[in-house]
Amino acid sequence: MEQHLDIHIERREAKKTKPAQDQLGFGIHFTDHMFMMDYTTEIGWHHARIVPYQPLVMDPAAKVFHYGQTVFEGLKAYKTEDRRILLFRPQKNMQRLNRSNERLSIPLINESFALDALKQLISIDQEWIPSGSGTSLYIRPFVIATQPELIASPSSHFQFIIIMSPVGPYYAEGLNPVKIFVESTSVRAVIGGMGEAKTAANYAASLMAQEDAKHNGYAQVLWLDGVHHKYIEEVGSMNVFFKIKGIVYTPALKGSILDGITRDSILQLLQHWNIPVVSGDISIQKVYEASREGTLEEAFGTGTAAVISPIGELHWHGQNLVIQNGQTGELSNKLYQTLTGIQNGSDPDLFHWMTEVNMR
Amino acid sequence: MEQHLDIHIERREAKKTKPAQDQLGFGIHFTDHMFMMDYTTEIGWHHARIVPYQPLVMDPAAKVFHYGQTVFEGLKAYKTEDRRILLFRPQKNMQRLNRSNERLSIPLINESFALDALKQLISIDQEWIPSGSGTSLYIRPFVIATQPELIASPSSHFQFIIIMSPVGPYYAEGLNPVKIFVESTSVRAVIGGMGEAKTAANYAASLMAQEDAKHNGYAQVLWLDGVHHKYIEEVGSMNVFFKIKGIVYTPALKGSILDGITRDSILQLLQHWNIPVVSGDISIQKVYEASREGTLEEAFGTGTAAVISPIGELHWHGQNLVIQNGQTGELSNKLYQTLTGIQNGSDPDLFHWMTEVNMR
Ligand SMILES: Cc1ncc(COP(=O)(O)O)c(C=O)c1O
Ligand SMILES: Cc1ncc(COP(=O)(O)O)c(C=O)c1O
Repeated sequence: MEQHLDIHIERREAKKTKPAQDQLGFGIHFTDHMFMMDYTTEIGWHHARIVPYQPLVMDPAAKVFHYGQTVFEGLKAYKTEDRRILLFRPQKNMQRLNRSNERLSIPLINESFALDALKQLISIDQEWIPSGSGTSLYIRPFVIATQPELIASPSSHFQFIIIMSPVGPYYAEGLNPVKIFVESTSVRAVIGGMGEAKTAANYAASLMAQEDAKHNGYAQVLWLDGVHHKYIEEVGSMNVFFKIKGIVYTPALKGSILDGITRDSILQLLQHWNIPVVSGDISIQKVYEASREGTLEEAFGTGTAAVISPIGELHWHGQNLVIQNGQTGELSNKLYQTLTGIQNGSDPDLFHWMTEVNMR
Repeated sequence: MEQHLDIHIERREAKKTKPAQDQLGFGIHFTDHMFMMDYTTEIGWHHARIVPYQPLVMDPAAKVFHYGQTVFEGLKAYKTEDRRILLFRPQKNMQRLNRSNERLSIPLINESFALDALKQLISIDQEWIPSGSGTSLYIRPFVIATQPELIASPSSHFQFIIIMSPVGPYYAEGLNPVKIFVESTSVRAVIGGMGEAKTAANYAASLMAQEDAKHNGYAQVLWLDGVHHKYIEEVGSMNVFFKIKGIVYTPALKGSILDGITRDSILQLLQHWNIPVVSGDISIQKVYEASREGTLEEAFGTGTAAVISPIGELHWHGQNLVIQNGQTGELSNKLYQTLTGIQNGSDPDLFHWMTEVNMR
C-alpha cells in the first residue's frame, strides 16, 4: 500500500509527549509526523515522504518570504465513539487548494494522491486524534515557494507540506455569541484580488483591523466590500449568515470571499430543511434596518475551526446592535448540533460528507 | 565600533566564489554574510548578529508561511570610480520599512540602528559590490513572523534579516522601452488594503496577471485602481509617470500604491528643473486621448531595480498605443542619466541623497 503511493516513510524514533485533552488550545501542538513533497519545473511534483515533524531549512531568499507565493487549506479529522476516523468533505479542500494554486500561479497537485497521502499520515499519527467533546485533529496542507531569487515572478521550486494539530474547541467559551466590529476603513480583499483563494495575503491584510477590534473588546471583524464599503463579505476567517424574517441570507460568491465548505454544507442543510435561503448582496444597512424593525432573528459565522459562531452584537459607525438578546439562536444551535453530529459520527451521514480513514 | 552596536560578528571561514561581473543577473547570487536580529514579545528586538549567509531553520507552522506577516525593503549600494561606497537615501527605506511594519502589526525597528547594522554588513562584504556600468549591490532587508501557531493573529516572534546580492542592470536590454499590458480584471491592491506597504501580499496578487502578460509578449502589467478599474496606479513593481503636453503626471499617494523613493527623487528633480508636475488621478482614458491628440510625449516606470524604465507601447482592451515611436524619450533619458550619475558618484550630490559607508 505504501509502495503503491510511492510515499517514502521515515518514522520518528521517540514519540513526543501528547498534551492533555483539556489543554489542547488551537494550532499550538503538532503531531509526530508531517507529509512533504517537492516540485521543480523540470521534474514536477516528486519525492513524496512522511517524515518526523521537523523544521524547514530554507534559503532566506526563498520567494515565499518576499513575494507571498503560498496557499493553504484547513480541515479536520474526528474520532468517533466507536473509534473510527472520519474526515469532513476532504475532496472539497483538495479542490479548493488547486483553485488557490491556480490564482497564485502554483502548479496543481493531484487531488486524490494528496488525499491518499493525508490518510496515510493520519493513520500513522492516529493516536494524536483527541476524542473529547469539541476536539478534533486540525489538518493544515500548504504550499510554499522555495526558489531563492529576488524577482517577483512565479517560483520554479515549491514544497507541499501537511502538518496536523490536535485541537480543542476554537472558542474556549463554546457556542457563546461574540461581539463583532464592523470595519469600514480597512479592506480584506476586493473583486479582482485574491479573496476567493486561501492564501496568506488575505490574512495578512486582516491583522491590523482585527487587533484594533480586539483591543476594543470585539472578538472579530466583519468585513465590508472594498468598492462600496457597504456590502457584507465575511466575519473574521468565516463566512457569515443572517436570518431575517424567516429567510436566511449569505453573501454570494463573487470573487472576494472564500467558498467555505461549512457554508456550502449549511446551504445544503437549509434546503433539506426547506428553510428559504438567499445567496446575494446584503448591505450592512439592511441588517441594521431589520434590527430596527425587529425582523433580524439570528446572525452567525461559519468555518472549519469554530463550525458555527453565533453573533451576539454588532458595532458599526458608533451604533451597537444586539441580536437575539445576545443569546444563541435556535437555527445556529440546530446547525451546530447537526454539523458536529455528522462530523463526529454520532448522527447519520445523510449527505455522504464523511470519508473514513482506514487504520493500518 | 562593533561593540558599540552590540552586533555579534561571526565571519565565514572560506569565502564563496564571486560571479563574473557580466553574469550577475538580478537577485540570484548572495554575498558571504547576512544580518539577523530576533524579536520576542518579552524581550523586544535582540541578538543582533552578522553571520555567514545560511539557510533559515523554521517551524513549518511559522506564521509567515500561513498568514503572510512579513515586510521588506529594497535599496542599492554603489561603488564609485574612486572606490567609495555609497547608499541612495537609505534612511527613507528604513522609514518605509517601519510604515510597512505598522500596517502589518509588526513591531517597529530602530531605524538608525538598522542603518548602522547595514553599513557594517556592507563593509564586511564590500568586495561583493560590483563596479561595472549599471551594476550595484542590491540590499534586501525583511522581517518574517516565526511563531509556530495556526491562528491568524500577529506573531509573538519575528526575525529581521538583511541579505545582499550583487546585480547587473535589471533589464538586460538596458534603457530600451518595454511593452506594457493594461490589466482591467485583476487588481493589485485597493484603498483600505496594503498597497502602500512593501509586503509579500501585493506581489503575490500580481503574479497571475504578470505571467499572462508575459505569455502575450508584454514585459509588465499596468495596474488600474480596484474600485473603478479606470485610474492608473503602478506599472509592475514600479511607480509610473506620463508626460503630456509638457506636464508630467504621476498617480497621487492615496493608499493603494507604494511611496517610491525613486518617485520622490524624480519629483524633486523635476521641480528643480522647473518642469511642471502633477501628482493626482490619471485615467487610462486620458492617456489614450492624449495619444490620439498627439500630446502624449513620454511614459516611464520608476523604481530602485530599474531606476527608469521607458514605456514604448501600451495595450488596453484590444487597443495598442505606441509612445514616442517606441523610442526612449528625452526626459526619461535625462532622468536616468542624472539619477544614476548621482547614485554612482560621478555627478555632484545636489540633494544630499547619498550616504557613504566607511570601510573598516
Ligand atoms: C477567510 C475565510 N473565510 C471563510 C472560511 C470558512 O471556510 P471553511 O468552511 O471551508 O472552513 C475560512 C476558513 O476557515 C476562511 O479562512
Ligand atoms: C510595488 C512597487 N511600486 C513602486 C516601487 C518603486 O519604489 P522605489 O523607488 O522606492 O524602489 C517598488 C519597489 O521597487 C515596488 O515594489
